[in-house]
Amino acid sequence: MDYESILKEVYSEVKPFLNKGKVANYIPALSKVNPNKFSMSLQLFNGTSYHIGNTNEKFSIQSISKVFTFTLAIHLYGKELYKYVGHEPSGNSFNSLVQLEYENGIPRNPFINAGAIVMTDLLMNKYKDKTFLQIINFIKSVSDNKNITYDKKVVQSEKEYGYRNLALVSMMKNFKNINNDIFEVLDNYFKHCSISMNTKELSRAMLFLANNGKDPLSCKEFITSSQSKRINSLMLTCGHYDASGDFAFKVGLPGKSGVGGGIVAIVPNVMSICVYSPRLNKKGNSFAGTKALEFFTTKTGLSIF
Amino acid sequence: MDYESILKEVYSEVKPFLNKGKVANYIPALSKVNPNKFSMSLQLFNGTSYHIGNTNEKFSIQSISKVFTFTLAIHLYGKELYKYVGHEPSGNSFNSLVQLEYENGIPRNPFINAGAIVMTDLLMNKYKDKTFLQIINFIKSVSDNKNITYDKKVVQSEKEYGYRNLALVSMMKNFKNINNDIFEVLDNYFKHCSISMNTKELSRAMLFLANNGKDPLSCKEFITSSQSKRINSLMLTCGHYDASGDFAFKVGLPGKSGVGGGIVAIVPNVMSICVYSPRLNKKGNSFAGTKALEFFTTKTGLSIF
Amino acid sequence: MDYESILKEVYSEVKPFLNKGKVANYIPALSKVNPNKFSMSLQLFNGTSYHIGNTNEKFSIQSISKVFTFTLAIHLYGKELYKYVGHEPSGNSFNSLVQLEYENGIPRNPFINAGAIVMTDLLMNKYKDKTFLQIINFIKSVSDNKNITYDKKVVQSEKEYGYRNLALVSMMKNFKNINNDIFEVLDNYFKHCSISMNTKELSRAMLFLANNGKDPLSCKEFITSSQSKRINSLMLTCGHYDASGDFAFKVGLPGKSGVGGGIVAIVPNVMSICVYSPRLNKKGNSFAGTKALEFFTTKTGLSIF
Amino acid sequence: MDYESILKEVYSEVKPFLNKGKVANYIPALSKVNPNKFSMSLQLFNGTSYHIGNTNEKFSIQSISKVFTFTLAIHLYGKELYKYVGHEPSGNSFNSLVQLEYENGIPRNPFINAGAIVMTDLLMNKYKDKTFLQIINFIKSVSDNKNITYDKKVVQSEKEYGYRNLALVSMMKNFKNINNDIFEVLDNYFKHCSISMNTKELSRAMLFLANNGKDPLSCKEFITSSQSKRINSLMLTCGHYDASGDFAFKVGLPGKSGVGGGIVAIVPNVMSICVYSPRLNKKGNSFAGTKALEFFTTKTGLSIF
Repeated sequence: MDYESILKEVYSEVKPFLNKGKVANYIPALSKVNPNKFSMSLQLFNGTSYHIGNTNEKFSIQSISKVFTFTLAIHLYGKELYKYVGHEPSGNSFNSLVQLEYENGIPRNPFINAGAIVMTDLLMNKYKDKTFLQIINFIKSVSDNKNITYDKKVVQSEKEYGYRNLALVSMMKNFKNINNDIFEVLDNYFKHCSISMNTKELSRAMLFLANNGKDPLSCKEFITSSQSKRINSLMLTCGHYDASGDFAFKVGLPGKSGVGGGIVAIVPNVMSICVYSPRLNKKGNSFAGTKALEFFTTKTGLSIF
Repeated sequence: MDYESILKEVYSEVKPFLNKGKVANYIPALSKVNPNKFSMSLQLFNGTSYHIGNTNEKFSIQSISKVFTFTLAIHLYGKELYKYVGHEPSGNSFNSLVQLEYENGIPRNPFINAGAIVMTDLLMNKYKDKTFLQIINFIKSVSDNKNITYDKKVVQSEKEYGYRNLALVSMMKNFKNINNDIFEVLDNYFKHCSISMNTKELSRAMLFLANNGKDPLSCKEFITSSQSKRINSLMLTCGHYDASGDFAFKVGLPGKSGVGGGIVAIVPNVMSICVYSPRLNKKGNSFAGTKALEFFTTKTGLSIF
Repeated sequence: MDYESILKEVYSEVKPFLNKGKVANYIPALSKVNPNKFSMSLQLFNGTSYHIGNTNEKFSIQSISKVFTFTLAIHLYGKELYKYVGHEPSGNSFNSLVQLEYENGIPRNPFINAGAIVMTDLLMNKYKDKTFLQIINFIKSVSDNKNITYDKKVVQSEKEYGYRNLALVSMMKNFKNINNDIFEVLDNYFKHCSISMNTKELSRAMLFLANNGKDPLSCKEFITSSQSKRINSLMLTCGHYDASGDFAFKVGLPGKSGVGGGIVAIVPNVMSICVYSPRLNKKGNSFAGTKALEFFTTKTGLSIF
Repeated sequence: MDYESILKEVYSEVKPFLNKGKVANYIPALSKVNPNKFSMSLQLFNGTSYHIGNTNEKFSIQSISKVFTFTLAIHLYGKELYKYVGHEPSGNSFNSLVQLEYENGIPRNPFINAGAIVMTDLLMNKYKDKTFLQIINFIKSVSDNKNITYDKKVVQSEKEYGYRNLALVSMMKNFKNINNDIFEVLDNYFKHCSISMNTKELSRAMLFLANNGKDPLSCKEFITSSQSKRINSLMLTCGHYDASGDFAFKVGLPGKSGVGGGIVAIVPNVMSICVYSPRLNKKGNSFAGTKALEFFTTKTGLSIF
């Protein structure tokens, strides 16, 4: 397929939507980005990649980091992981705290905040005070790129305004589903959410999930084929909070969004994709980013369905 | 692939699970089936099909009928449909009534009872007193089979014990999301749930969903490619109530289960599958049926992820 | 105390509020009343009574009938009653259906719709097809008045629009907390809600609850002193749905309101009160009626606190 | 009435229940009390008091302190208070967090933990770093007793295990219903919960609420008559979490319990009461204490209903 032309068409169709939606403003550090940026990157197995827009623009990966921490946790814990976290859609955004209470502190899945906080706690059991170092090293490894850093201002802002996350971790500690000190857990969690990457880097980082857990370029095997499929299935059912069904419906690919405006998506056995645009729709997912992926799968027929 | 051998292996591996779980007993008519039956059918695009077990055993298709009513409704209403029903996972079985109340009588998706009842009501707006006739004719058409009937004893039993469904339809009528007489709506709903088919027939009936809405054998186009993908995505995210994430995780295919013990699954562009075994796991899905599909996708690698 | 003057003052102070709020419009039959009517009646133990406003205006007693059915049920079943209904505040109006589902079909208390429907069902176990006759005869007896009737148009309207009540009774039947035919239960329930009385009659009817279960005028003992205190305590904690705390806070008397615009209140050992004004506040209680009772207890100091 | 004999009878009847229930064990410091203690004190307006059992035994007043903080807050803020807290029963223990989320961080009433934390925060707005000093001074003042202290071990234990309270305050801070530093708010909250008193002192401290806000012995007027009635009404509707209806039903007096095993109750215009026994029933209220109050009001007829 002529991906270069397709990207151009997508870009041209998505332009009218670039001023739709609102940049995340729950923390000041995120609200200051240029709201009209857009970029999209495709990473193929043969090493070819296609890019359009502001592809050097780094952004806060936010919840996309949950894919990395879940991958590491599944690698370290295997099936034992599901004692601490479920793998069902949460149904509704408001359920996060409600369900935590009903379900005795076991989060619905690793892609809601509570679940990702549990993943961080589990990594801390093994990696101790090297936890964040191990997480960022893992991202460098899957990205085949040593220049991945995090934004200290975003971490600071998260700490100042992160009362909802403090409520979540306290609640789970109360139910004994958090083992480590809650403030250290949050510190690591906020750090990995604050990692900055551009669409080039993120699409490259996700390639192993398009190829059954093995990076086709570096030939490193990060997880088993079965684990890789499960991560993809979870991205499909739970990757966009209470708009997961809608994303599956319209885009038809496993994906994970972040409030920083990024979305990654996987075309199994074909490619990995990343799109960025910081204005969010009402459900907290990139407005133009979602549209771009929808146009892309419509044009290419690359839905998994 | 040598599907005949694979089916034999699956059958042999699933045998130890055939006495696990319990037959649905919420209505007497369903509780009387032989609990140890098992059959599995694969339907390929070239007309070839593979079968194992008690493939002539007819069973109540129950919630699998929701795929047919949703297909008809999407065909008749297009996008206007989503005024009356959502397309997000419901999160939790108990939510059915709770969410109906919070969300003003709009069911989460067409595959929970409330959603399927709304589909039936929408069909009645168009088909009037021919509604059930049109539904069963549609099933005959996608099955390419004139011998599809329903079980009047099951309908009678549903009516006698269907107080929860009466609560659902009353609640939605209260919110004006049901247009027709609630008892006539339930009558049509119970009838299409009580249709009896075997795995041969059901796997054949689902083939159009594996081929973008067009039956590759009869060459009839029932719905558009885009609509077909959306039905598949919905089966993946919402096809198994609050075990939908688990099914996606373990089986990795769009599917829909019924409390009668049947499960249908779609391998896009490859085949349609039906498995039957009446004992259910705790989430109300066929115990051995789920296992068989898990073994099948593990052996064949035919997951969409 | 000079109750005549006090009533005049209350009437004068309440006048500016008579056009506040909205008449119940969930059924057409209720929406047709004259919205600006007001009356208030005090019934003392010595037979003296005080009245102001349109005291001959009959209105639909609606939920006030729940006091009568609970009284009859407590009389017939004693403590066994609490197998079928609780005696805790329901917290929130939306909880009616939610809590029914969580709490397996056992309503929170006899003053929410679900609870009153259960009372009606329990009366039917004993009184069979004489149930409504027995209920209205009981009301005639406590009122010492043979001219109590019900409004057939209101019953008809309730039946046509009562889908929420049908949802409630279906749900409880599903949980086996309803013994009789659900449509006959609703028929009796709608009938006793549709009884018409004026404030004179209703204040007289409640006098036994101000005197420990015994009518001080007719000297008939309807229930024990302990049962009477429990009914009063329940009116205080649960008599006004999710505004019960507010009523206790501002009025400080056990009371029960109906969407027809009536409110009854009890001053233990002193008097019974009834006030009527059909416009309702946001919580579904008479706007001017609540205000009038607030003015009355402020002026007289007749709060139980 | 011969209260001395009545107390003896109550004591004798309550003895078989002294080994029923379980001492609070959510924090180690509370679990170490002698589980079989019992005492009961009555404080009359003329200065006479009656006592039975281990009346010198001090215990952690816990949630009874919420009556004092609400009183201080109502005194300082008047009606403005109800911007920050409601006055409705919460319906169900689990609702604490659920309702906080639905109702945007506004707690249902000042007697659930979230509500009392808000009261503490409001007091801190006015009293700054003298907040706890002002609270304990107020208790000394209403008790007419300078020897009131708090238990530092209990505070320490609360801090170590208070993750649920941390979740509540974080959630409310997230909704901007907490103004001060959340850890300082919790520090003050834990301190006033850890105040130690015996039934003599607590019954004396509550006397002003039995006399419309004015201590009949010291003649100090702490709050207005109207405010006093409102505190009493709130104790009746919300004083015992999700067993408030049951307490109103069986005891018929405004009251407030604490997990330390104490319960205070008010007989308006007659006396104030305190009972202590550390074993709790399933709802978290003193088992024998509740029984003793039930026996007391049955014997004396001193219910408000």
